[in-house]
This record gives sequence, C-alpha cells and structure tokens, in this order.
Amino acid sequence: MNLPNPIQRLIDHFEQLPGIGPKTAQRLVFYMLRLPKESLQAFGSNLAELKNDVKLCSICRNVSEGEVCKICSSSIRNKDLIAVVSSPLDMLALERANFEGVYHVLHGVINPLAHIGPDDIYIDSLIKRLVDIDPQSFSPVEVLLATNTSMEGESTAMYISKLIRDKGFSEDVVKITRIARGLPVGGDIEYADDVTLSRALSARSSF
Amino acid sequence: MNLPNPIQRLIDHFEQLPGIGPKTAQRLVFYMLRLPKESLQAFGSNLAELKNDVKLCSICRNVSEGEVCKICSSSIRNKDLIAVVSSPLDMLALERANFEGVYHVLHGVINPLAHIGPDDIYIDSLIKRLVDIDPQSFSPVEVLLATNTSMEGESTAMYISKLIRDKGFSEDVVKITRIARGLPVGGDIEYADDVTLSRALSARSSF
Repeated sequence: MNLPNPIQRLIDHFEQLPGIGPKTAQRLVFYMLRLPKESLQAFGSNLAELKNDVKLCSICRNVSEGEVCKICSSSIRNKDLIAVVSSPLDMLALERANFEGVYHVLHGVINPLAHIGPDDIYIDSLIKRLVDIDPQSFSPVEVLLATNTSMEGESTAMYISKLIRDKGFSEDVVKITRIARGLPVGGDIEYADDVTLSRALSARSSF
Repeated sequence: MNLPNPIQRLIDHFEQLPGIGPKTAQRLVFYMLRLPKESLQAFGSNLAELKNDVKLCSICRNVSEGEVCKICSSSIRNKDLIAVVSSPLDMLALERANFEGVYHVLHGVINPLAHIGPDDIYIDSLIKRLVDIDPQSFSPVEVLLATNTSMEGESTAMYISKLIRDKGFSEDVVKITRIARGLPVGGDIEYADDVTLSRALSARSSF
C-alpha cells in the first residue's frame, strides 16, 4: 500500500479492534497525525499501561485501580443487594439506571458452543461472597441475576440460581431475583415479539 | 461514573477521535482489557511514537519514513504525471485505482471560512517542483488536479491552475488537467443531481 511502516503498523493495530474496519483505521491514524505529539504520547502510554494499572476488585471482580473497587468500598451502597452482571459494561448500564446495590461481575456467560463453562467465569467467587454472610443478620441478601435475556444469559442465571440453592443457602439467607422481562418503555405492543409479549402478560403487575 | 482512572483516561482519549462516541470508546477500552499485555504495549508505543517516526517527503509532502517517500523514490512510477491531492487518504484512494504517476499532497484545501489560505497548504512546494523541470525535455509535465469536486476542492484546483500559468509555465512545459466529473460508475441518470448530469453531458466522449 506504499504507506510508511509506523503508519501501517498503527492501522493494523486499530483494525484488530471490534467495529473498526480498514477505512476507519486509516481515517483514525491520519487524524492522529494532526494531533500534538504530547497528546499522542499520553494516549500511547495510557494504552500501553492499561493492564498494569487496572486489576479486578477482590470482592466483586469489577475492574478497579485498587485492591477493592470504589463501589465495594463505598459506604452509601446497599451491600445486601448484589447484582450479578456478565461484564463491566453491563455494570455501567445499571449505574446509569441508578442502581444502588453492589455488583458481582462474571466476566462472561456460560456458553458451551464457545467452550465457556461455569469454571471459566467468576461464579466461584460469588458463592464465596455468600458464604461470608452473617447467618444471624435480620434480612436476607438479595442476589439479583442481571445477565442478558439471551439464551446464554438466561441459562447462566438459571445455573447460578440452582447452584446457590444446591450449596444449601435457604431463602431466609439468600433471596434470588431476576431482572424483569417485558415490553421496553416506549415499546409498541404491535411490534413486540411473541416471547417478550407472553412474558409481559404473565409477569403483569397490579396498577 | 465509578470507573478506574486508567480506564476513564483511555476512554477520554478514544472519545476525541472522529466518529467515536462515548459508548464506542467504552466498548473499545473494555475490549482492550482482554488483549494480551504485549499487544497493548506494542500498540501503545506505536501510537506514542507515531509523529516521531513519520515525516513528510521532501519532494511530494506525502507521509514518509525516510527523507523521500517510497513513491517518489520508485523507478517505475511516471514522474511526468503529478496528481495534486488534498490528503494522504486521497492518495491512497488513487493508489487503489492503480494511478501510476507521482503525487503532491497539499494537506488541506483553500477554505476562507476556516481561515485556510494558499500559504497554509503545500502549494509553494508544488511550484518549486515545477521550477526544477528541465525546459529541454521532450514532453510536458502533466499536473493532474485531483482535489475533491466540492466547492473548496474546485476553487483550490482553480487557484493552483491560475498560479501555475501566472508563474509563467507555458502549456509546453506544464500541462494542467482535472479529474473527470460525471456520473459515477453504476450510477442512475434518474437520480443524478443536476450539476453532475450537466457536467456529464458537456464532457461527453466519443464511443
């Protein structure tokens, strides 16, 4: 392609990212050529050091700068409500929806087709968290299964729910819930798919 | 947003790039967290060093690793055909169309609204290239004005054409051409805009 190697290498790097094709990668790199050197150096060193600077929170496995993440170490979050999510991005979505509990990040879902089993995601550490619950506490801890409503998300939720009961946690100690499935707000009944609509009917609430 | 600083900083960097919004930036950074450390380090150092490793070719002002770019130093390119383009990306597009001449990259177009005048782009160095032409050569050098067919591209082409003649280069020494304007290949006459269609009519060729 007759491009200088440093440019071509950077284009190749960008092309490996999801959703970035060859043309976008070119456009980004040529845009960067017009940025000030200092800004590129800051960008580059941030990128290079990303994995050195970020670890997983020892409690919830969310991305964190310190040993324990900001949410787990916050005093105003409800520690008796644990949302189980499959990725940090889902955690961010729940944050935008003003969720006030804490999280447990699985970093994946069970997906036999992609060879991802229960041991490949952070389910073990969720169980360990539940073991630490004080059995004398007044109210049960609520585990809100907030995985996607896709097939993999549903089966992961079902697996975790069954595992918690199998491990002997009774409903008095661990209450298990699932995010509601129904019509999205602003949705059209006419265009809703059958499964969603039948869910929305069976899960109807008093008004 | 309760994200670790190294992640937030990298998201901010990505957000500054054209066509990348907050959600895409998040998605990219969280994808990167799953890449191997070595790959991130290579990516980061390439990015940081981009401007140190790349300079402009002393002849055509194209991006280059060395003093003179690969195209200008190639022996198989036609040095008597110089395509004037506004950016390296336009040069790449012409390369894909198998253009066999050499280039002159302006790095911009004249755009009074954006305060970009003739002195802010590499027009001077184009004139200097033409001065070096051997007046005893058999055939004239062809300057193919390949700027966009937008208003700014057209007026930049017109400005350069007039400047070359004003500097005293006759048609025997410098032949000036402009890329053809007409219907795009595969285009519908029914949906063509009026200006393009009238261009396509007046520039008709024998068949």
